[in-house]
Amino acid sequence: MSALPGKPTWQSTCQTLRAHRDATFAALSPPLPLVPPPDELPLNVSAIPQELLTRAELQITESAPEELVGRMATNCITELLPSRALKRAEELDAYHATHSAPIGPLHGLPISVKEHIGMAGLDLNAGFVSWVGRIAPEDAHILQMLHRAGAVFHARTTQPQTLMHLETSSNLYGATLNPFNRLLTSGGSSGGEGALLAMRGSCLGIGTDIGGSIRSPAANCGVYGLRPTSYRLPVGGLSATMGGQEQIVGVIGPLSVSLDGVRLFMKTLIDARPWLAEPVLVPIPWRDEESYLQKDGKTRLKIGVMWDDGVVKPHPPVLGALREVVGKLHGVEGVEMVDWKPYKHDLGWEIIAGLYFGDGAAEETEAIDASGEPWRPLSNFIIKENPHLKHHLIADVWRKTLERDVYRMEYARVWTETGDIDEETDEFTGEGCVDVILCPVGPGAAPPLDCARYWGYTSQWNVLDYPALVFPVTKCDPEVDVREEGYTPRNKDDEFNYELYEPEKYRDAPVSLQLVGRRYEEEKIIEALKFIKERAGLPFVKFV
Amino acid sequence: MSALPGKPTWQSTCQTLRAHRDATFAALSPPLPLVPPPDELPLNVSAIPQELLTRAELQITESAPEELVGRMATNCITELLPSRALKRAEELDAYHATHSAPIGPLHGLPISVKEHIGMAGLDLNAGFVSWVGRIAPEDAHILQMLHRAGAVFHARTTQPQTLMHLETSSNLYGATLNPFNRLLTSGGSSGGEGALLAMRGSCLGIGTDIGGSIRSPAANCGVYGLRPTSYRLPVGGLSATMGGQEQIVGVIGPLSVSLDGVRLFMKTLIDARPWLAEPVLVPIPWRDEESYLQKDGKTRLKIGVMWDDGVVKPHPPVLGALREVVGKLHGVEGVEMVDWKPYKHDLGWEIIAGLYFGDGAAEETEAIDASGEPWRPLSNFIIKENPHLKHHLIADVWRKTLERDVYRMEYARVWTETGDIDEETDEFTGEGCVDVILCPVGPGAAPPLDCARYWGYTSQWNVLDYPALVFPVTKCDPEVDVREEGYTPRNKDDEFNYELYEPEKYRDAPVSLQLVGRRYEEEKIIEALKFIKERAGLPFVKFV
Repeated sequence: MSALPGKPTWQSTCQTLRAHRDATFAALSPPLPLVPPPDELPLNVSAIPQELLTRAELQITESAPEELVGRMATNCITELLPSRALKRAEELDAYHATHSAPIGPLHGLPISVKEHIGMAGLDLNAGFVSWVGRIAPEDAHILQMLHRAGAVFHARTTQPQTLMHLETSSNLYGATLNPFNRLLTSGGSSGGEGALLAMRGSCLGIGTDIGGSIRSPAANCGVYGLRPTSYRLPVGGLSATMGGQEQIVGVIGPLSVSLDGVRLFMKTLIDARPWLAEPVLVPIPWRDEESYLQKDGKTRLKIGVMWDDGVVKPHPPVLGALREVVGKLHGVEGVEMVDWKPYKHDLGWEIIAGLYFGDGAAEETEAIDASGEPWRPLSNFIIKENPHLKHHLIADVWRKTLERDVYRMEYARVWTETGDIDEETDEFTGEGCVDVILCPVGPGAAPPLDCARYWGYTSQWNVLDYPALVFPVTKCDPEVDVREEGYTPRNKDDEFNYELYEPEKYRDAPVSLQLVGRRYEEEKIIEALKFIKERAGLPFVKFV
Repeated sequence: MSALPGKPTWQSTCQTLRAHRDATFAALSPPLPLVPPPDELPLNVSAIPQELLTRAELQITESAPEELVGRMATNCITELLPSRALKRAEELDAYHATHSAPIGPLHGLPISVKEHIGMAGLDLNAGFVSWVGRIAPEDAHILQMLHRAGAVFHARTTQPQTLMHLETSSNLYGATLNPFNRLLTSGGSSGGEGALLAMRGSCLGIGTDIGGSIRSPAANCGVYGLRPTSYRLPVGGLSATMGGQEQIVGVIGPLSVSLDGVRLFMKTLIDARPWLAEPVLVPIPWRDEESYLQKDGKTRLKIGVMWDDGVVKPHPPVLGALREVVGKLHGVEGVEMVDWKPYKHDLGWEIIAGLYFGDGAAEETEAIDASGEPWRPLSNFIIKENPHLKHHLIADVWRKTLERDVYRMEYARVWTETGDIDEETDEFTGEGCVDVILCPVGPGAAPPLDCARYWGYTSQWNVLDYPALVFPVTKCDPEVDVREEGYTPRNKDDEFNYELYEPEKYRDAPVSLQLVGRRYEEEKIIEALKFIKERAGLPFVKFV
């Protein structure tokens, strides 16, 4: 498509946006250290900041130069916010000088933000060239709340075209790479956050997740990431397609270099009662003063271990990591482990894939085609090649919603039936159930670019709306994680994933796992992971 | 429409169903007392049970004869359940004999149930002739839970064609009348429950509400009725059109002859953790151990009084009742009253009316026309004469859902802005706000048949998803509640309502009011109403 007279080409829009990004880098003072050109960089660039930065700089996590290094190697930043961040830091310093106390629980904490979470006066393009120039009239509700708690926003990060990839690839900025192995993806759609955190260019970032978009980058980049239950954290002021679609609710959540960071983020926001301003949210307070694992004075944790979702078999590094964690937990006092049998996860995907894009992806198609920008490979994959995608009638959506609810009820019954039976009534009591499910985050570690085509390990918990917490375990080691020979794939997705695995390609890639609870059990899964981390000694390797 | 060969006419289907109902009456032992034929009955039949029943029978609230009396005068029952009720009563007696303890918090309590809440093996027609013969495979989830708590289901009650009237009129059973004045409606759509409770043929019943269907009959019949926030009580196993529609969520809730009955119903169900089996529900426990009104050791209740929604002016009996309650509360220690300015309630109706019937009412139209039964007047009103009703595209529903959310956020802001401002930040703190809104339940007391055409006073709290509790205050008195002369109506709805009011027509009709809280504040509005009842001495008249 050629541009109309007076209308910029999609290429020139991208150039303008990149020039703006570079200008925010150039505005930094002191200036940035020199970084080798990309073709002189190693595949694993995660340690580069330590080489380039001074010791004093390294001690300052909010240091802007460090962020730039993150960007140079992995392409994860859309713009830096030096003037906004410095202004806020000055305000906070002044407050502290006056009151001799922090302004709130996040006083001075730098936080990075995925681009489609609106910031007053800044672009809000959701990864579409044609949306460049949409300017947020005010900060998103979650940013207003974090600001009041003392946070400092220092960088905005990349996202893919459509926001519906488990990678981060757009015509605006190209692909965001994995800092541990630049031939692999950082994951997505919050892949800018994943890469930036892996480089320690940020210690806490905000992502969004409707099918795995927080957990995929957290897992691929070796950091923590939480997809909360829907309607727990504020979502007002986000830009994306499918606004008003409620069947599968996109949620906002943290990526963090520490588990405590995840808790701090959740607690700070929920303690501030976001439901008063955003009444779609559920007024459940943050409830972790009492333990969920202490029973009769002893710790009790019943873990359902799901090795495989029955659809696509995980690669050897994932199964190895899971085996290793389970091995460390064997014999730990208070821990009981049972196998979790996946209940119709293929149906789970069919339901969620039929509820995305209910308008037949008309909105995404228009948003891409309006500028003439090319369709990225994974946009084609999830829209044009998606057999479940249809332009529904209202009655179709209602019917599919009922199917979703039946599936959710059946899955809840499966969960309840892991527990005790009342001898008198012969009914399940709801006690003694599995507390958490321990499972893979994906069918492998971070895949090569444009190969993240199986969503089932993350989207399963979106269709059920269960909270899911990702944590780093180990990294791929081609010498240990050899390919399984003679495997007969179960289906086309399984075959694609099996063929993808060549051990050497995945060298150094983080391997992460996922802990899943029932709806609104964020506090419980965080407590359970803290316990598991301590007892199993996680992570098994140091990532940076 | 004439019937196909072998296919029953709609008239014969109705006759068959009524014969079934009558057979359940005939199965009672001892037999029923004789009731005068309808044309010999007074308009106000609410005292008839006391004339016909023995003292011993009157002491037994679950007495079936009493129910029949309710039916004879008002036509509120679709069938009695003598064998089911007696069997359950025997089980409960046996349990009590063995354990010397009740089986649960509702041991032996008789509960009546609106017909479209499924009961195993019984019809589930939702008011459509063509749906007669749909048999519930099992009890609805809420009935299973109440059964476990010890409840005894003794009667099923009427509902209107489509379930979308604020009256109770179907071809299956005709119209359900108001026991206090048989020229008026019992309200609806849970009007069978309202009438039966008014006659004390039941003390606790289950209704459903998507626009006022619990509150309208509770108000018209002088009993208590609660519309809870969505996703608080289990809805699995209901039959209705628009299944899978999530933009405006229909809820289930109690009608009760006492306020304590409302609390008992809510607490019993929520204490049993319905979310374990029905994961769409929100796991908020029942929280009324601590007071919502005690602040610094004193009772504090800030009431926003809404006299009028700005669209349709309430009739004199309603304004008089509100004035009388406000008068009684003036000067009560701890009570603060401020005027509540209705915020765009006309827009509220426009939004909700555009979100009902998203398929253009295709489902309702098919369900009515399939049998050839006539459209009842209020089915025509809400479907064929509804200017907001359209067959939407998916994108239309998404856009309207966003409009709904914007309106909800704006209304929440209005509420927060009734509270305190932080002097330092100049922001509202969320403290010191109005606790509850006190307002009419409708633009008048129970209207004459087929005249309940303004939903705004109830549907307003559905579009906002606020909990709303209805309670009896007084009754219409033509000598006191004179017509306002010289009033200039604001719009067509207001004119219709104004013209409707002729004092004599409304003689003896109950006048009720409504107490509204923010989302999930059921416990708070119940506590507030208990306080208001005590201090104002409510209700001002004895209804039976």
